[in-house]
Amino acid sequence: MAEASDRRVRITLQYDGSGFHGWQVQPGVRTVQQELEAALARLTQRELRVAAAGRTDTGVHARGQVVSVDVPARWEPAELERALNAVLPGDVWIASVEAAPGDFHARFSATWRAYEYRVGTVADAFGPFHRRTCWPLRDALDRSLLDRCAERLVGEHSFRAFAKAGQEERGDRCEVYRAAWSDWSAVGLVFGIRANRFLHHMVRYLVGTMVDVGRGRRPFDDMDALLRNEPEVTTSPPAPPEGLFLTAVGYDDAVGGTRGGTQDE
Amino acid sequence: MAEASDRRVRITLQYDGSGFHGWQVQPGVRTVQQELEAALARLTQRELRVAAAGRTDTGVHARGQVVSVDVPARWEPAELERALNAVLPGDVWIASVEAAPGDFHARFSATWRAYEYRVGTVADAFGPFHRRTCWPLRDALDRSLLDRCAERLVGEHSFRAFAKAGQEERGDRCEVYRAAWSDWSAVGLVFGIRANRFLHHMVRYLVGTMVDVGRGRRPFDDMDALLRNEPEVTTSPPAPPEGLFLTAVGYDDAVGGTRGGTQDE
Repeated sequence: MAEASDRRVRITLQYDGSGFHGWQVQPGVRTVQQELEAALARLTQRELRVAAAGRTDTGVHARGQVVSVDVPARWEPAELERALNAVLPGDVWIASVEAAPGDFHARFSATWRAYEYRVGTVADAFGPFHRRTCWPLRDALDRSLLDRCAERLVGEHSFRAFAKAGQEERGDRCEVYRAAWSDWSAVGLVFGIRANRFLHHMVRYLVGTMVDVGRGRRPFDDMDALLRNEPEVTTSPPAPPEGLFLTAVGYDDAVGGTRGGTQDE
Repeated sequence: MAEASDRRVRITLQYDGSGFHGWQVQPGVRTVQQELEAALARLTQRELRVAAAGRTDTGVHARGQVVSVDVPARWEPAELERALNAVLPGDVWIASVEAAPGDFHARFSATWRAYEYRVGTVADAFGPFHRRTCWPLRDALDRSLLDRCAERLVGEHSFRAFAKAGQEERGDRCEVYRAAWSDWSAVGLVFGIRANRFLHHMVRYLVGTMVDVGRGRRPFDDMDALLRNEPEVTTSPPAPPEGLFLTAVGYDDAVGGTRGGTQDE
């Protein structure tokens, strides 16, 4: 589909995942990739395929999803950004379109990804302004236990216990550069995590398990046991998708992209 | 419709105005009052009429709307709160149901109302997580000019110039107890105003005019001229409804309700 006169661009976008069956094109359902490719086709009169840094699941949001695509060279990045925002539906928004090197690939060039997970701890979290973008909880959470859980995640570990079964064909080790809970304005708490790669559903399994430790339903030591893959210990159910945001993707721009691919939340 | 065995309750609710043609029941369109009365009818098997503190317009939100209604006495307030939230759609949420004196009226007992108006000043304000709940602007705003405009509003004034024409049958004087701009997290600014009463569209005309002063499109002195009802000076267009929230309604609970009614944004 690429032509000699094309230019590669890096598109950074946001979407509210509430109205989508995730990122990836699937027949018969509305997805973000399908909306973006339809907008590109409408503007360029070409069938263009985009590659995304992370394939978010149904209901998961993005504030910093990155895609790469080759577009006809007559489309200047700034012009394409304005035109895409004019034709895309309101729940998808292009933050930027930038020129990219010919070997840039949104998925394979990425060196890290960052996610946030919001937990609502006040009654308002159940209200109309937060319910689609957080996991509202009625239980009190022990912040110091949550902090200890997060600290335990930093470094390189096998996260096999925190992944959807049978999805680890590229190995189960991830290097976590940052994992921490912080305040989410007056509404609750937010867990932020940055790593070289993520296994499928990993952030949601981590949050589901940490929250159960934080509300006293299971001991802190379970976190250690899970990271050691002790077979008799299993995670809590995954936290619901509404609270999860893909917030940023990192690239080593000086080098261009040759890093291995990842499986993403 | 009220029966001897009824109890009066005060309901505090939130709604995302995006999907509603305002508060008040109108034939053929979806309104918040209609959804609430339908939920009450479904639970109580009676046609109940609710009275609201403020009749919000199409697209306007509420974080603290208050309504009064007589419900069958067998409905305990806490039970009614849970049951309403179980049957209401996701964009309406009951924050509380409380027993109220028989002379409590959500509109006529109110002694003040408070609104907030959010202005987005960063690019993200155009994105999917903010566009329905703020007015995103591309212009730089002079915060000190905005602050001077807000200070000018405190006290009792005629706000006729800031009202939709022909809506002032109960007079045009309002006493503003508080008016101030503050930071809205990292996204922009929020204007908060509390007054004994509001004229129709008053907050939106105030914000539209203050923003034009703040971005240098008209002089600060216009605020004075408008508050003096100088006929040759007119307001800027009203700010769009998406940025406006009815945030709280005040009652002098010790006395019960005899204060005069108001016209509301």
